[in-house]
Amino acid sequence: MARFRSLGFLTDYGLEDGFVAVCHGVVTSIVPDARIVDISHLIPAYDVRRGAMVLARATPYLDPAILVAVVDPGVGGDRRAVAVETESSVLVGPDNGLLLPAADALGGVRRAVALDRAELFLEPVSATFHGRDIFAPVGAHLLGGVALTDAGTPIDPDGLVELPGPRVFMRIDGLEAEVVDVDHFGNLQLAAHWRDLDTALGEPLDVEGQRAVTGRQFASVPAGELVVYADSDGRVAIAVNGGNAARRLEVTRGGTVRISGGRTPGS
Amino acid sequence: MARFRSLGFLTDYGLEDGFVAVCHGVVTSIVPDARIVDISHLIPAYDVRRGAMVLARATPYLDPAILVAVVDPGVGGDRRAVAVETESSVLVGPDNGLLLPAADALGGVRRAVALDRAELFLEPVSATFHGRDIFAPVGAHLLGGVALTDAGTPIDPDGLVELPGPRVFMRIDGLEAEVVDVDHFGNLQLAAHWRDLDTALGEPLDVEGQRAVTGRQFASVPAGELVVYADSDGRVAIAVNGGNAARRLEVTRGGTVRISGGRTPGS
Amino acid sequence: MARFRSLGFLTDYGLEDGFVAVCHGVVTSIVPDARIVDISHLIPAYDVRRGAMVLARATPYLDPAILVAVVDPGVGGDRRAVAVETESSVLVGPDNGLLLPAADALGGVRRAVALDRAELFLEPVSATFHGRDIFAPVGAHLLGGVALTDAGTPIDPDGLVELPGPRVFMRIDGLEAEVVDVDHFGNLQLAAHWRDLDTALGEPLDVEGQRAVTGRQFASVPAGELVVYADSDGRVAIAVNGGNAARRLEVTRGGTVRISGGRTPGS
Repeated sequence: MARFRSLGFLTDYGLEDGFVAVCHGVVTSIVPDARIVDISHLIPAYDVRRGAMVLARATPYLDPAILVAVVDPGVGGDRRAVAVETESSVLVGPDNGLLLPAADALGGVRRAVALDRAELFLEPVSATFHGRDIFAPVGAHLLGGVALTDAGTPIDPDGLVELPGPRVFMRIDGLEAEVVDVDHFGNLQLAAHWRDLDTALGEPLDVEGQRAVTGRQFASVPAGELVVYADSDGRVAIAVNGGNAARRLEVTRGGTVRISGGRTPGS
Repeated sequence: MARFRSLGFLTDYGLEDGFVAVCHGVVTSIVPDARIVDISHLIPAYDVRRGAMVLARATPYLDPAILVAVVDPGVGGDRRAVAVETESSVLVGPDNGLLLPAADALGGVRRAVALDRAELFLEPVSATFHGRDIFAPVGAHLLGGVALTDAGTPIDPDGLVELPGPRVFMRIDGLEAEVVDVDHFGNLQLAAHWRDLDTALGEPLDVEGQRAVTGRQFASVPAGELVVYADSDGRVAIAVNGGNAARRLEVTRGGTVRISGGRTPGS
Repeated sequence: MARFRSLGFLTDYGLEDGFVAVCHGVVTSIVPDARIVDISHLIPAYDVRRGAMVLARATPYLDPAILVAVVDPGVGGDRRAVAVETESSVLVGPDNGLLLPAADALGGVRRAVALDRAELFLEPVSATFHGRDIFAPVGAHLLGGVALTDAGTPIDPDGLVELPGPRVFMRIDGLEAEVVDVDHFGNLQLAAHWRDLDTALGEPLDVEGQRAVTGRQFASVPAGELVVYADSDGRVAIAVNGGNAARRLEVTRGGTVRISGGRTPGS
């Protein structure tokens, strides 16, 4: 326990059915005083990309930790179960791209193993609930001090499954970028980095045909106005001060948003 | 504390109003280092049957534990407040059928008491919030070491209120069974046990007029196909690989699903 | 840690995005064994009044505690960040009225400071996530033993921002009062205190044109009937036994409900 502060836990299980508590029970049956931090269990069902993003954003604040993540449309199929070690944390979950953005956020993969030690599983392993039967117990054993190399067979990190990257297109008068996230407040996070945005674009900006200005924060603009800002990840984000940008722009995650310069001063 | 790993907590309180945190506060005012595991607080309001099912599925993984469960349409009326002891756990809640399936899952009721020791309650006891005023504090005292027989007056376990059982009808060419649960993913759990399903039924099966096959797991069928499988409780379950079976079959909990054999090979 | 039982945490962050877990991680990086009680993270976005009410209702059951509350439409603007001390607890959050009803529920404000000690913040402080960068770390430092006067510069408690009070109008034949809360079950809490309700009003009462009776609890009336009762805060509340009063009366929070006496016996 000395090495890791907590076991972070992210799934698409929802909060209605008690599945999360079952996994908590499995963890504490192995490490009675485990601190479990629930990152999110409201990842949309089977949405590996969204799970990967939420995990990657949260993990730097939990590090060093064991991070168990389960968004697993291929459960029971032939996708591998893996543990991925970074400098100070270990990520545990399916090998479907879910873990790698978080590993990158923690400094990159150092070693990886395929989970194949049945003595660390909750037997008999079901075909449909590997969170309970494989990922939670293996995560707990790692939290309790089992070494990575005792949790599975080493595999080549370069062979881990990666998600395709989101889209950014540079335009002569601005950029067009995929909406990689829409948060609870309706704020949009784009795939583009703040440095991609040409600071010579004239203000006000045009965002999907609507007026917007750049600012450091929501309160940089009057209530109800669109603001384009650098979020805490350094990406281009769009908000409405006191409102909901996703609804205003009628855009959802996976869609694209075009930002272009307005008429420059004097034009 | 040595005897129990945690206090499991299940209600229909929802997560908006702070009611759950109030009960956490009551528990830790009595046992400062209590580990509380929230099983679910999203049981539909007053839905005792659904609460009983979620509780029964989760408790084996928390055992030995104090389990406080409150889905209580009769709060303030004349239903009894009880504590029900199994071999290694104690369930605390209203005597309305909520606790017994979990007790069965833990090996059956050994002893039961009616909660009538006002010195263990949070006084004055309100008429509408017995989770805060009776169940959480009594659960905490039991967790802290109070003996069952000091928490109330012994009652006959055979007199505890039971929920009526769900429906299963065997048919000449298959079965028709109540949908006892629909989980977050839209997977259906039927009242029928896997052994009820005649293994001589020809494949593919007919489920409510749609083609399905039996399989061990979701990935046993192509994406978007119906699969009939034994879930981790040994019951007949129906899923769509990568999809939502409840929406596909237009069925909800409490409804019935008919499964019949398809044309046998050669017919 | 001896002085406070826990760190209570309330926000409008929702549960999807991992923002809450990020703050948990920040707290435990400062106080590794902190007990964090999540009061609610489902306050509607930017709804300071609702946040204030949920906080005020829950805090007496957590006291003594550090209470970090973030419903903060003015984040990044010129609203102050404050810590407010009561007899035994300390509230941390934006100076926008969110904290004061809870402080009142805990016996009133004794001292207050403006948070301006950058060494207690998570640097660099973002413009949009003060829960992570200011409120959670300051709350953790206070939990860990930092004195209030070391967390900021003393300010006059009378200068703290207050929310305007809700509306109650006394009528010749009853009263009309703002609905200050609608809970998960659809029960209404009115701004009026129970003592405001003239006990000489004839029964049955008329509530928005529908028949209702006063009672001590839901079960005081038949299933499906309206009951007017004193809730655990001593306010006038309205429920439907086994049903949803908000839907029955077609009223939401912020609306008003009129209660008048029915025909008196004999009339």
